[in-house]
Amino acid sequence: MRAAVYRRAHFNAAHRLHNAKWSDERNREVFGPCNNANFHGHNYELEVCVKGNVNPDTGYVMDLGVLKQIIKEEVEDRFDHKNLNLDVPDFQDRMPSAEHIAAAIYDYLLPRLPAGLELSLKLWETPRNAVGYPV
Amino acid sequence: MRAAVYRRAHFNAAHRLHNAKWSDERNREVFGPCNNANFHGHNYELEVCVKGNVNPDTGYVMDLGVLKQIIKEEVEDRFDHKNLNLDVPDFQDRMPSAEHIAAAIYDYLLPRLPAGLELSLKLWETPRNAVGYPV
Amino acid sequence: MRAAVYRRAHFNAAHRLHNAKWSDERNREVFGPCNNANFHGHNYELEVCVKGNVNPDTGYVMDLGVLKQIIKEEVEDRFDHKNLNLDVPDFQDRMPSAEHIAAAIYDYLLPRLPAGLELSLKLWETPRNAVGYPV
Amino acid sequence: MRAAVYRRAHFNAAHRLHNAKWSDERNREVFGPCNNANFHGHNYELEVCVKGNVNPDTGYVMDLGVLKQIIKEEVEDRFDHKNLNLDVPDFQDRMPSAEHIAAAIYDYLLPRLPAGLELSLKLWETPRNAVGYPV
Amino acid sequence: MRAAVYRRAHFNAAHRLHNAKWSDERNREVFGPCNNANFHGHNYELEVCVKGNVNPDTGYVMDLGVLKQIIKEEVEDRFDHKNLNLDVPDFQDRMPSAEHIAAAIYDYLLPRLPAGLELSLKLWETPRNAVGYPV
Amino acid sequence: MRAAVYRRAHFNAAHRLHNAKWSDERNREVFGPCNNANFHGHNYELEVCVKGNVNPDTGYVMDLGVLKQIIKEEVEDRFDHKNLNLDVPDFQDRMPSAEHIAAAIYDYLLPRLPAGLELSLKLWETPRNAVGYPV
Repeated sequence: MRAAVYRRAHFNAAHRLHNAKWSDERNREVFGPCNNANFHGHNYELEVCVKGNVNPDTGYVMDLGVLKQIIKEEVEDRFDHKNLNLDVPDFQDRMPSAEHIAAAIYDYLLPRLPAGLELSLKLWETPRNAVGYPV
Repeated sequence: MRAAVYRRAHFNAAHRLHNAKWSDERNREVFGPCNNANFHGHNYELEVCVKGNVNPDTGYVMDLGVLKQIIKEEVEDRFDHKNLNLDVPDFQDRMPSAEHIAAAIYDYLLPRLPAGLELSLKLWETPRNAVGYPV
Repeated sequence: MRAAVYRRAHFNAAHRLHNAKWSDERNREVFGPCNNANFHGHNYELEVCVKGNVNPDTGYVMDLGVLKQIIKEEVEDRFDHKNLNLDVPDFQDRMPSAEHIAAAIYDYLLPRLPAGLELSLKLWETPRNAVGYPV
Repeated sequence: MRAAVYRRAHFNAAHRLHNAKWSDERNREVFGPCNNANFHGHNYELEVCVKGNVNPDTGYVMDLGVLKQIIKEEVEDRFDHKNLNLDVPDFQDRMPSAEHIAAAIYDYLLPRLPAGLELSLKLWETPRNAVGYPV
Repeated sequence: MRAAVYRRAHFNAAHRLHNAKWSDERNREVFGPCNNANFHGHNYELEVCVKGNVNPDTGYVMDLGVLKQIIKEEVEDRFDHKNLNLDVPDFQDRMPSAEHIAAAIYDYLLPRLPAGLELSLKLWETPRNAVGYPV
Repeated sequence: MRAAVYRRAHFNAAHRLHNAKWSDERNREVFGPCNNANFHGHNYELEVCVKGNVNPDTGYVMDLGVLKQIIKEEVEDRFDHKNLNLDVPDFQDRMPSAEHIAAAIYDYLLPRLPAGLELSLKLWETPRNAVGYPV
């Protein structure tokens, strides 16, 4: 028997979308208000999905208390109440778009999961905007 | 790198489920209160999903501000505060069920998207009822 | 000991805002798309609040199962899947604005409640628009 | 034309996670507070997804009023306001984890659906924890 | 300057409504499925409201991190993953209705707040049923 | 007849809680991660409540389309995608706590409302933290 388990988490952060290879004008044109030099911010809502076999002794794909702790260490401790551009090394040379944030979270979470499980994420940047990764 | 982006939108409309090929009795039997001759209505919540490659220069699958504007022009301007049966040509000869509304929205949005992107929709007719298209 | 109890319910309906004493032009100007002659519609979410003394034998202000049934008979059976302008006598001569719908619901619910209880309502016409009555 | 329809339902129940083959110590270690001998409980939110062809006469994959009634009979009447360990035969010898509850619901719903439809479920045990089945 | 601050928290628990002074028949009649001898359960969502003066040096009515910690100690540690009837002394001789649970929470939280602040609560037993205390 | 109307809006912004009269150590102690020198951010959800008499000709306390536009001009245009500390004059010398943001919003909205209406706000800084003003 195979199933998926989902765990939701929350962090909030400041960021700015700015491509250093481009002129200021092009940055404003492409990123609009998201290019604000003084940053803006979001409450990020994360839904982590883990698929795998159900252990008949526990009835679990994996213990969601363990998953909650992994998300705390790998995601909340790194990103919560931070400036993604200035405080988080992952986004020194990479745009902190929701797509890239989701990919970075994926890369942090995957090695922490028990072997044989499949990982995917949905990340809301606002109540109306979200990304999914991988697809 | 491939990802999905999601954008939510809202419109409200009146409609009625009625098959002109059937007797009034059969219509009442099949569609129940949804067959009310004077119409009823809903707040429709739409989640548009677009999958594709992430542009490394922007970190975007596509600009969600652009997607928001496309949804406004193709969905909200056509359907919001309308009677789907009387005001919207798509449903002159086609039942305005949530399934068909989702298919009509898909047909309007797809040609407006940049080439190479994959489109799908989830449409809530009430907080408890929704459809997905395509599947 | 005094407390409040809240019960949520749902109905959906078509309506149109139109003042028969005014010209068509003035109606369009004041009510905009809500004046559409063919109606539009909403999912109405209702939160009923009842305040009163807590019965120490039951721990209840009032039985929420009873309140649910009263709301079904007085609100859902009257308004759900209806055209408020055409199917509901209350709005023959009264604008079916959310404010007036809330007042009509109040007048139907109050006589059905046990004596000595205080009633108030919040009614969402969309996820972003609501009314409260009385205040 | 193929589409998915979704219907949400609700039930609440008590349960306890305890493996009778294990020592009390091991049970406490593995299940933590979920092992409480006196039970704890949840509001379970269920989203049923049914995929299939859209009937052009109705515009429906299937009538959601019929699906609502099937969910009432097979899920709510069995599980609502129950103790899953003591009152529900399915969990006499099987851990009432969300994964197993979802699988039991799947097995009750599938035979009640019209032929040719594909069924899947998402079941929230708390606002932050959910399972999907099958995957 | 006076303001209110709100903090949300979550716990889940089993309970049973049963008045020991009454016959089993009367209990079943009054409490229906909530009288199930084997208990049922809920996810309780709590919103704590604290009103008071805003400190101009901090911009705070009170530090919501402190309030979160007080709620953890006084509410979550006492009630989460518990059987309210069997594990919580407050409900040995008092019906664990939402009204009484809210009153018990109020009595635990009030002495922990800084002097001069006004406390009130809203407690959801299900997404559709809630209580407020005091009123 | 008197009623309340509610309108929800959204903006996102970066901010930092820091009292220039205090040492860095005291700031870190009092504000914790909210003191991060590089800022963090939030999605702010605003619910504006306006109470007043219902105009019998329109059924309105006030036109919610007008209120939506006032909120856009006075709140969204000022605060959305901004750094509250650096980009918004209101918070040059005043802590951008949710309490103070709500008070600033109140002061901008009140003069724009028709005479005789009563204004109050609820502002969510995260899904679990909110403020109300005035009280």
